[in-house]
Amino acid sequence: MSVTFPAGFQAAGVTAGLRASGKPDLALVVNTGPLAAAAAVTTANRVHAAAVDLTRANVADGAARAVVINSGNANACTGPQGARDAADFAATTARALGLPAGEVLVGQTGVIGHLVDMPKLLAGVEVAVAQLSEKGGPAAAQAILTTDTVDKQVELTAPAGWRVGGMAKGAGMLAPALATMLCVITTDAACEPADLDAALKSAVARTFNRLDSDGCMSTNDTVFALASGACGLIASREELTEVLTEACRRLALGLLADAEGANHDVAVTVRGASSVAAAEAVGRAVTRSNLVKTAIFGNDPNWGRIVAQVGTVPAQVAPFDPADLEVIINGKTVCEGGLPACDPSEVDMSPRQCEIVIDLHAGKEEATVWTNDLTHAYVHINSAYTT
Amino acid sequence: MSVTFPAGFQAAGVTAGLRASGKPDLALVVNTGPLAAAAAVTTANRVHAAAVDLTRANVADGAARAVVINSGNANACTGPQGARDAADFAATTARALGLPAGEVLVGQTGVIGHLVDMPKLLAGVEVAVAQLSEKGGPAAAQAILTTDTVDKQVELTAPAGWRVGGMAKGAGMLAPALATMLCVITTDAACEPADLDAALKSAVARTFNRLDSDGCMSTNDTVFALASGACGLIASREELTEVLTEACRRLALGLLADAEGANHDVAVTVRGASSVAAAEAVGRAVTRSNLVKTAIFGNDPNWGRIVAQVGTVPAQVAPFDPADLEVIINGKTVCEGGLPACDPSEVDMSPRQCEIVIDLHAGKEEATVWTNDLTHAYVHINSAYTT
Repeated sequence: MSVTFPAGFQAAGVTAGLRASGKPDLALVVNTGPLAAAAAVTTANRVHAAAVDLTRANVADGAARAVVINSGNANACTGPQGARDAADFAATTARALGLPAGEVLVGQTGVIGHLVDMPKLLAGVEVAVAQLSEKGGPAAAQAILTTDTVDKQVELTAPAGWRVGGMAKGAGMLAPALATMLCVITTDAACEPADLDAALKSAVARTFNRLDSDGCMSTNDTVFALASGACGLIASREELTEVLTEACRRLALGLLADAEGANHDVAVTVRGASSVAAAEAVGRAVTRSNLVKTAIFGNDPNWGRIVAQVGTVPAQVAPFDPADLEVIINGKTVCEGGLPACDPSEVDMSPRQCEIVIDLHAGKEEATVWTNDLTHAYVHINSAYTT
Repeated sequence: MSVTFPAGFQAAGVTAGLRASGKPDLALVVNTGPLAAAAAVTTANRVHAAAVDLTRANVADGAARAVVINSGNANACTGPQGARDAADFAATTARALGLPAGEVLVGQTGVIGHLVDMPKLLAGVEVAVAQLSEKGGPAAAQAILTTDTVDKQVELTAPAGWRVGGMAKGAGMLAPALATMLCVITTDAACEPADLDAALKSAVARTFNRLDSDGCMSTNDTVFALASGACGLIASREELTEVLTEACRRLALGLLADAEGANHDVAVTVRGASSVAAAEAVGRAVTRSNLVKTAIFGNDPNWGRIVAQVGTVPAQVAPFDPADLEVIINGKTVCEGGLPACDPSEVDMSPRQCEIVIDLHAGKEEATVWTNDLTHAYVHINSAYTT
């Protein structure tokens, strides 16, 4: 049941009327437990929405009781009026819930450069509060979607018995309005806010931040985490990190699988690196190459394009000898010692999953970065969309 | 007449038989003047072809008499045998011209991961030497092409009277075999090798290096410059820089106009920057965005995608206030003070040329970066190509 799988949470998903499709567009998640620990990771984009500033301010003390999210309008590039509207959204939600204004975190997603229809949105808040329920997780997961074709939910039980739930929206990183990714993670464990924050940052760094479908960074991306303490168990930073990472990984792969116009989900694992940062840098260089991505669309195991991208990473970032490079595509070694190792026709590129392993033979660290192929459908969707 | 426009140069373009199409694939440019100054700028890719190493070594003393180039095979990722083959190519050319081996610079372009058919290539060298002529520039310009649809040549006369000629190959930076760009610049001015080198580096930095069609860096890119001194005039570093920059700019725009599958040539000018480096960084962030590039293909003046890319540049790289951002597309101000400034339908996106101006209002420096739109034809060409 998504974010209401752990004890101590209620949620709702309703239709405020911001989406032209008439689909649900307002989600509310409320922590009713004994604890109100909260954390959030937000976009690093300097051009970001007012909701991002508001969330950062309200989560700074490590405490929050609610997350309210609308789809259909990102309220980005909307200036001082947009900032007032985001504050009204939070304040109205807090009032309806009987909470201090600083207890509400806000996410907004959809088109940018347009003011939100505030009467509709605020009326929707009242409806959402009235519909709050311990079974409301799936409805909330529906209400945050934009161009997604399916909702993304996760439910996990830690070895110690406490639970984690989550929901996310995002059609890869490819969403045309740039408001690409929002995620809410809940847990009924009790924990220090600082531990929740550290666990969330670590989980996001190794999951959502390694999903690099088209290298475009949103104005509104936010991952929220709320801990209710309702199950009476205490979770350590290490335990939280492990389970939150798995929850985020599953949601991230859900985004990847739903990437707009993609035919392949591509996992680029760089191993034999001198550091995790080096492995990640090499992985990102490969996943950001349009030549690599179009080759995969064409079912072409073009390792030449891959090693040429590997070579663009500076030596101080990722030390390796080009003459040691090894590339394995879908289990077949195509390049060894920097030279051709087999007939490319021996590689089966037909599955949707494409596994690329690059061994730098320069150390013991590794990292995986995920992306999609670059297809006609991607071009179509992102060129046909109207501002 | 391309590279033979200045005095003191002979050239030839012949068919060695490396290209499946049977088109000319071997170009030779020889400096017959009193001076043999030479310079070269090569790819920064750590995975690069043997020809690049050979050129770097032979040009290190600032002197060279000839450039020999084959298309049809990049001789990259070919290991020690590839390195021996590149050395043979240079040595055979030098012998046929009666020059020391170190006087010949080498360029190779085409598919990667395949050994060159050396008997064909070396037989071609003999034919090329026999056909050297002061009218051979256009034939040489043809013989370096791969997927290009037209040759790229330039001829300029400096205010002081000395001449510059040039030829280039490259279908944007989009060439599927990664061997994307080769260029030879000639001049009949006399100059210090150090001045030629500095002028070439400066010219390339502001022209070819700002052509960022898909962010993919080749294994073989090289820009060669030869000065013959045959006209009896001496050029200063400043004069050389100015004229070489203009020659490189024209050739770079020629590559852009011939970019595979492109419908628009896009110039992104960032002004009001605190430094040229800041302007360039912001320009590259925009030109590398697939969301921006697909929007332009769709004739959509989507400034939201542009400012979101501007916002990804860290503050220490390019200081600016997001609330000051101004965006002008094809002469129409679409975003001012970070907010919408007009109805996007007022922007005429129909011309092939698309001019995007981004004013950071944070200084007095500017830079222009060029790219193309991302089209169905790009995806088709780069996915259908066989390794």
